[in-house]
Amino acid sequence: MFRHVVLLSWIEDATEEQKAEVAKRLRDLPGVIPELRSYLVGPDAGATQGNFSFAVVADFDSPEDYAIYRDHPAHRSVIDECIAPILASRAAVQYHTA
Amino acid sequence: MFRHVVLLSWIEDATEEQKAEVAKRLRDLPGVIPELRSYLVGPDAGATQGNFSFAVVADFDSPEDYAIYRDHPAHRSVIDECIAPILASRAAVQYHTA
Repeated sequence: MFRHVVLLSWIEDATEEQKAEVAKRLRDLPGVIPELRSYLVGPDAGATQGNFSFAVVADFDSPEDYAIYRDHPAHRSVIDECIAPILASRAAVQYHTA
Repeated sequence: MFRHVVLLSWIEDATEEQKAEVAKRLRDLPGVIPELRSYLVGPDAGATQGNFSFAVVADFDSPEDYAIYRDHPAHRSVIDECIAPILASRAAVQYHTA
């Protein structure tokens, strides 16, 4: 399995509505990108100081399937319309979990 | 399910042996921390510029079980002996995946 992990932090001015819209829009993606074998996203639980704001963990059969997700227009739309306007910082790793 | 995600980046001086030891030692933890329901760790595949170096994704039944892992002496030993000496930066999120 090939896993893609992204942690995002939001700017201070981000509204609750903007943050909620990121989760809502991302959770629609498995319906339009069948390469997503598992897709669990969500806001930080708030239990630990210094954490990032939001996590995305996506599992694929292969790096090629990850690339399809990465470049998919439905995914790029969420990034451009919902994530980019409130993004402060981003950390990512892709790794083989087998 | 309660998921803990950490992305780590290593200092430039980190050796291949030091990096491999992190993965090896972490992969022993499910044998001594039964609260770990799933534990998939590994080095970045190197496909994307600007990525962090290493990912840890750990699944628990509850935030309380995550806290047991976080504070477990076997886990703290890996952090102190293997991760801290080569750590450049760290990003983390804990979130509810249900």
